[in-house]
Amino acid sequence: MNQTTYAQLDAYMLSCMGDSAHDAEHVYRVLYTALEIASAEALADHDILIAACLLHDVGRPEQLADPLLCHAEVGAGKAYRFLLDTGFTEAFAAHVRDCILTHRYRKSSPPEMIEAKILFDADKLDVVGAVGIARTLMYKGNLTEPLYTKTPDGKIADGTGECKPSFFQEYKRKLESIYDGFYTRRGKEMALARREAAVQFYENLLGEVRASYEGKELLEKMLK
Amino acid sequence: MNQTTYAQLDAYMLSCMGDSAHDAEHVYRVLYTALEIASAEALADHDILIAACLLHDVGRPEQLADPLLCHAEVGAGKAYRFLLDTGFTEAFAAHVRDCILTHRYRKSSPPEMIEAKILFDADKLDVVGAVGIARTLMYKGNLTEPLYTKTPDGKIADGTGECKPSFFQEYKRKLESIYDGFYTRRGKEMALARREAAVQFYENLLGEVRASYEGKELLEKMLK
Repeated sequence: MNQTTYAQLDAYMLSCMGDSAHDAEHVYRVLYTALEIASAEALADHDILIAACLLHDVGRPEQLADPLLCHAEVGAGKAYRFLLDTGFTEAFAAHVRDCILTHRYRKSSPPEMIEAKILFDADKLDVVGAVGIARTLMYKGNLTEPLYTKTPDGKIADGTGECKPSFFQEYKRKLESIYDGFYTRRGKEMALARREAAVQFYENLLGEVRASYEGKELLEKMLK
Repeated sequence: MNQTTYAQLDAYMLSCMGDSAHDAEHVYRVLYTALEIASAEALADHDILIAACLLHDVGRPEQLADPLLCHAEVGAGKAYRFLLDTGFTEAFAAHVRDCILTHRYRKSSPPEMIEAKILFDADKLDVVGAVGIARTLMYKGNLTEPLYTKTPDGKIADGTGECKPSFFQEYKRKLESIYDGFYTRRGKEMALARREAAVQFYENLLGEVRASYEGKELLEKMLK
């Protein structure tokens, strides 16, 4: 790919960015990480990968405005039309579209081509470790959702099996188990190397919150 | 304090809550932690402390709507009027007002009474450790501010001396040095016990982000 084409894709991506967790920096981390993973995968087409990474979240604003929409589906269509309008071949645009369509964490539509697997892994690497914790917290803050919820008897819920949205719920529902879902060898290695940072943070956070609740008994004794 | 009075203060506090970082759970953690600290401080008046903790952030909505307003000043006035209206004595309302006025981290108006020092420390304990990291990230997400900014040569800035707002800037400007500012012995002990969790998270996050940027060189070699 040449500098001019890259700049066109970059400008289109920048025009579609939204919240702090899915900003242009997320896109660049995914792109650079994907190229790192691709360096261990002989068959990957770099131009397809660059385009798919840059454009993988262009459907985010639509999903943010209407949570019933899937940003992978919307984004795949937007990227396809943009690439055709920009002069790419139909085969190139369709290949990029298919990568974007399967980058979301859904068992029903797993990535199949090597570029789709690399995009999937690079995107999921931004959900593991300390980066995954930080982005999830920012996203929850953006939605004004809480850190945790409480059980009916007033104790701090650790997130397991929770229905109500919170950071702890998202950690237990998605972040904790994401390490099993990688497709490339290099992606899996990178994810596992960052796992401990996330586990430690979750445990420290739960421990601190529960410790601060120990003073609740003092209050109950003071109130007549 | 009796249950009915506590319920009146609690209901007023709940009517004044806002973003995920300064929600009712923050207020309860501050209250319970303050009572824990007070159990090591013989002279503290528990009723003053309960009222001051419950009402310390009632000025937040005004500051969120107009960042030039100080929530400590606005909240001190609101709490004073609310307590007088609810039937508390002028001396009680004024004591609570003065605690709220000095709970913000500002060198120009340090807390002086023991209840003010305890509120200050309990509130600052919610800014240290993993809880402090989590709340700061949620607050930054709520304001749609980024995780980090970049230096003019495109490298990830670690936040030191940064002008532009980001999580790393807030960590370096406030979170990293907060451990030196505690007034009570118990408060300082609790803060230091949680320090390592915050330091580790910041270092892991910076390390992961910088590692993901290593692939940038691969991109630069690929673009013609």
